[in-house]
Amino acid sequence: MKLNKDTKILIIGLGVIGGGYAAALTKAGYKVSCITKDEDDIKYAYAHEMISYGTTLVEPELIAEAELIVFALYPTIFIDWIEKYQHLFTKGCLITDVTGVKSSVVYKVQEILRDDVEFIPAHPMAGRERSGVEFSDPDVFKGANYIVTPTEKNSREAIRLCRQLGEVLGFAKISILSPEEHDRMIAFLSQLTHCIAVSLMNCNTSEGLEKYTGDSFRDLTRIAKINDRMWSELFLMNKDALVAEIDSFVTELHEFRDLIDAGNVKGMREKMRASTARRSMFEKPTK
Amino acid sequence: MKLNKDTKILIIGLGVIGGGYAAALTKAGYKVSCITKDEDDIKYAYAHEMISYGTTLVEPELIAEAELIVFALYPTIFIDWIEKYQHLFTKGCLITDVTGVKSSVVYKVQEILRDDVEFIPAHPMAGRERSGVEFSDPDVFKGANYIVTPTEKNSREAIRLCRQLGEVLGFAKISILSPEEHDRMIAFLSQLTHCIAVSLMNCNTSEGLEKYTGDSFRDLTRIAKINDRMWSELFLMNKDALVAEIDSFVTELHEFRDLIDAGNVKGMREKMRASTARRSMFEKPTK
Repeated sequence: MKLNKDTKILIIGLGVIGGGYAAALTKAGYKVSCITKDEDDIKYAYAHEMISYGTTLVEPELIAEAELIVFALYPTIFIDWIEKYQHLFTKGCLITDVTGVKSSVVYKVQEILRDDVEFIPAHPMAGRERSGVEFSDPDVFKGANYIVTPTEKNSREAIRLCRQLGEVLGFAKISILSPEEHDRMIAFLSQLTHCIAVSLMNCNTSEGLEKYTGDSFRDLTRIAKINDRMWSELFLMNKDALVAEIDSFVTELHEFRDLIDAGNVKGMREKMRASTARRSMFEKPTK
Repeated sequence: MKLNKDTKILIIGLGVIGGGYAAALTKAGYKVSCITKDEDDIKYAYAHEMISYGTTLVEPELIAEAELIVFALYPTIFIDWIEKYQHLFTKGCLITDVTGVKSSVVYKVQEILRDDVEFIPAHPMAGRERSGVEFSDPDVFKGANYIVTPTEKNSREAIRLCRQLGEVLGFAKISILSPEEHDRMIAFLSQLTHCIAVSLMNCNTSEGLEKYTGDSFRDLTRIAKINDRMWSELFLMNKDALVAEIDSFVTELHEFRDLIDAGNVKGMREKMRASTARRSMFEKPTK
């Protein structure tokens, strides 16, 4: 298949990310259909000109004509969906996803998938502290990272097409990682940060603290407002990598705690200078 | 004394906070002098119309005529300065400060201070991840908290004047706390967050992670760029409260880790729902 403005694109699941794909692709001149479970979300998408067709039914003809299918579902629902409806796919169609963990999803889906259909996994790393199509935004991918995580089962053609999709969506940076590399990276950069935010929010429940809150506490806890269903699935599916990152963070924090407790100013300042230097590498690129 | 546009205000230390005070007071029509150690900072302040007079010398006449003196120095330097130069204060003048820890500074200063001069402590809770007068901003206090931390040595008149200063500076909210209440609050809301950010930045030094960094990691580590001299002093001066907050955070994070490790989705989701509910109390007031 080719990705051009005549390509029949189907999005399964019209939440904040599926909706963002629909809106960005439509804005770029592509035609997008969607299947999602809630009629209101389809109404919203029509009203905001995000889709050319939407349905809550698993319509066999719609699926049969799709050349590129994007799954924007919770991980467990995604796998169930493939098992239940993959007989409806047309031969040669390409499947991709938006799942935030890879190893535990990618190999499973590729294992159960028909041989005449290819699944090329991808992870759009775009903020999503709010869920629902009404928070989707065609411009949310600008400046963000898009990561394709192929396995040895994937063709160069599919990888190329998946990259092209990332370009059309407007991602600033497109990378290729193995599912395992992806999961280690995401355990640290995304999942650990969410665990920290949740625990920071929960560890002191004194009354009245909100009155004195400044920007730094707000920044560290913004993501403590969390979609519990999605994130608990993501954590579970990347459990080993995540637990290892938590342990390594706690070890580091304990070292710092002991320096404070011992009144070791030199040691504290060394840690702070190291973090200051390393943080400068993580600034958002300006452009 | 009264705080009006004829009040002779002297700021000691023209860093990002001292500079912010100078700029905000000048903008509000007050006359501000300053003493600071670096001639370049005075030049900058003149060029940006932040002060009406500035000097690097401890000029006895300037200090003698001051009715309100704001100390915007590192905590240890503040105490040394009082010891060395308090004989220059005029009788009845009011002293305040901007120090981010209170118990270990306030009682010490009030103990050594002359009886005919009053020290009313305050903490302007404004962001300061960058240091230096060139980052000072007269509007940085808008929307921020100003906390007055009187002891039983303070007069109602001084507390009232200190509140008035907070109003003139433009703070959104002015509160009164005891030094001990302030220090417990700051250990959690500000110091713990900085310890977390520094440790998160230091705990994984794998190469290339910056390429995949999203907004949540950047938010959690923004304050990992830290003035090591100032913060190590602040941590040390609030050691017991801070270590207790770190321990309580680590205990909470460990509980969460164990739920992940055990695959306890129900438990994870309960923690996440609790953090989501509590976070909503900490939103920035819109106005």
